[in-house]
Amino acid sequence: MSLIDAKRRTIHDVAKAAGVSISTASNALNGTGRTNPETRDRVRKIAEEIGFRPNALARGLLQKRSHAIGMLTNDTYGRLTLPMAAGVSEVLVDQGVSVFLCATNNDPRLARLHLDALLDRQVDGIIFTATRLDLKPPVELTRLPIPVVYVFAEGPPESVAFIPDDAQGARLAVEQLMRLGRTRILHITGPEDYQAARTRAGAYRKSVGEGAEVLFGNWSEEWGREAVDTVFGREGSKPDAIFCGSDEIARGVIDALRDVNISVPEDVSVVGFDNWEVVSKQTRPPLTTVDMELKELGHQAGLAILSLSKGEVFDPGVRKLPCSLIVRRSCGAEQT
Amino acid sequence: MSLIDAKRRTIHDVAKAAGVSISTASNALNGTGRTNPETRDRVRKIAEEIGFRPNALARGLLQKRSHAIGMLTNDTYGRLTLPMAAGVSEVLVDQGVSVFLCATNNDPRLARLHLDALLDRQVDGIIFTATRLDLKPPVELTRLPIPVVYVFAEGPPESVAFIPDDAQGARLAVEQLMRLGRTRILHITGPEDYQAARTRAGAYRKSVGEGAEVLFGNWSEEWGREAVDTVFGREGSKPDAIFCGSDEIARGVIDALRDVNISVPEDVSVVGFDNWEVVSKQTRPPLTTVDMELKELGHQAGLAILSLSKGEVFDPGVRKLPCSLIVRRSCGAEQT
Repeated sequence: MSLIDAKRRTIHDVAKAAGVSISTASNALNGTGRTNPETRDRVRKIAEEIGFRPNALARGLLQKRSHAIGMLTNDTYGRLTLPMAAGVSEVLVDQGVSVFLCATNNDPRLARLHLDALLDRQVDGIIFTATRLDLKPPVELTRLPIPVVYVFAEGPPESVAFIPDDAQGARLAVEQLMRLGRTRILHITGPEDYQAARTRAGAYRKSVGEGAEVLFGNWSEEWGREAVDTVFGREGSKPDAIFCGSDEIARGVIDALRDVNISVPEDVSVVGFDNWEVVSKQTRPPLTTVDMELKELGHQAGLAILSLSKGEVFDPGVRKLPCSLIVRRSCGAEQT
Repeated sequence: MSLIDAKRRTIHDVAKAAGVSISTASNALNGTGRTNPETRDRVRKIAEEIGFRPNALARGLLQKRSHAIGMLTNDTYGRLTLPMAAGVSEVLVDQGVSVFLCATNNDPRLARLHLDALLDRQVDGIIFTATRLDLKPPVELTRLPIPVVYVFAEGPPESVAFIPDDAQGARLAVEQLMRLGRTRILHITGPEDYQAARTRAGAYRKSVGEGAEVLFGNWSEEWGREAVDTVFGREGSKPDAIFCGSDEIARGVIDALRDVNISVPEDVSVVGFDNWEVVSKQTRPPLTTVDMELKELGHQAGLAILSLSKGEVFDPGVRKLPCSLIVRRSCGAEQT
């Protein structure tokens, strides 16, 4: 008999079918009290036969663990959060741990309501994730009675956090362009007040050395187009490669180069950052780009919250996970 | 004293602080048993003072409701799901009901594991959502002991479902183009085996009448470009307007027209479908498009599952919610 094709079976149904008292049935199922092994096995067998589903709420009360963790995000459109949440879920689902995903919209009131709901439900831990690394949670998370893990967010000192290694990702991009013989590599990126933009720009400057030029702007296609218009409209030598801080910027760059008949990758190689496939696969030509491995970030955060919720030791600190380079046609390399 | 700045307080702490037995404290807090009103008020006051958080697990056991609902989605990147989940959450959070969002990746095994976890946790209901209307859930949902609501998915006969009114949305687009004096309106859309593509195409044909032409393909920019190349490369009269089945198709259409120096909207008006802003705001010119009001779909689904989980009557059937038209520059109208 399937476990889900009928109304909820209760411990009463089990006790009745087995001809034992409710407390005996409960002890047999929970392995508590003193039940003789034969009775215990018989009760468990009958429970399975009639489709009794042990009540997770009751189990949670006994074990002081609810086997659920809460994930708070400020990302409404899910581009960053859902791949990470899928990663968290993948490592927890086989452990019988569920993930409550709550969108706060970065609104302190909504965040507060969600957090209260999660605490009320006695979740075993909280994962906080943001759409930018340096965003503070919209609600205080430092003095909760349960562990908190930050992913794509740094959290306060001494917290457990997982972020992409932006510097290493930027190096991957620049080294690829250098390997292809490019010598005048420009960096067009987002706002300077974003930590990720500064980190990537810093690593780019260090790799490129003399001649490095960073144009900070915003994360849009429009900014990519505008920056190209400026750079290719001015006097002097022109870049033969552009490393972009996001795929959207890269798309704007490629479109603007196309508009003035500059070929990508023949005249100018272009590399993006994000591997957001709806953008990176649709540029003409398709975009070589840095992938932040969001799902792997989710895996690591999930494993960390699992350890912490079991009371295991887990060293605090910010862990930077490596990015990978996805090679498509825009950089001019053979595709891997 | 804040409710969250210390370790979890238990009923034992409350009983001790109030100088009563645990059963008296429990009765006072839950309003069960016979407790004299003075004692009850005193216990409740003390519980609040010491920061006792009534255990939602225990409350769930008493009330036979867990105050959580599960949301199953097959959408990993969240473009459709997260706006709907935000809508569901918005109407439920003030009712103290949380939403478990579980990504199934459209994988039957993962869907099964998630569903079992949700049932184990005694959720009060399930919302199933898909990335296309005619997708079957990857796991059997018809014989659950709890209510199920479908959103952006039709579900089996006699289920409660909320979907966008695709026909009405298509009419909005075509009527806008007609109002602007366009007489040769072409429809470029996704695969014919998608119900949404057929419904939109049917409504388009009915509105346009003689001369209606539908090109089915896929949902990509590439298809939009290819279709434009075909239509504008062949003999005969050319369309003066193109209604696209998705924003991505519309983006391809606009890019391809630009490549052959046909002006949008002067020569050809373009309207999309989705109002997926990362696309619709970035086309040149910005895209007039049909918005499926995903958040409102989420609101309605949330209210429905709330009613059903309380045992209230809710008429089954598929409810079509109206789309709206977002007017930007690509259709040639003054922006509203």
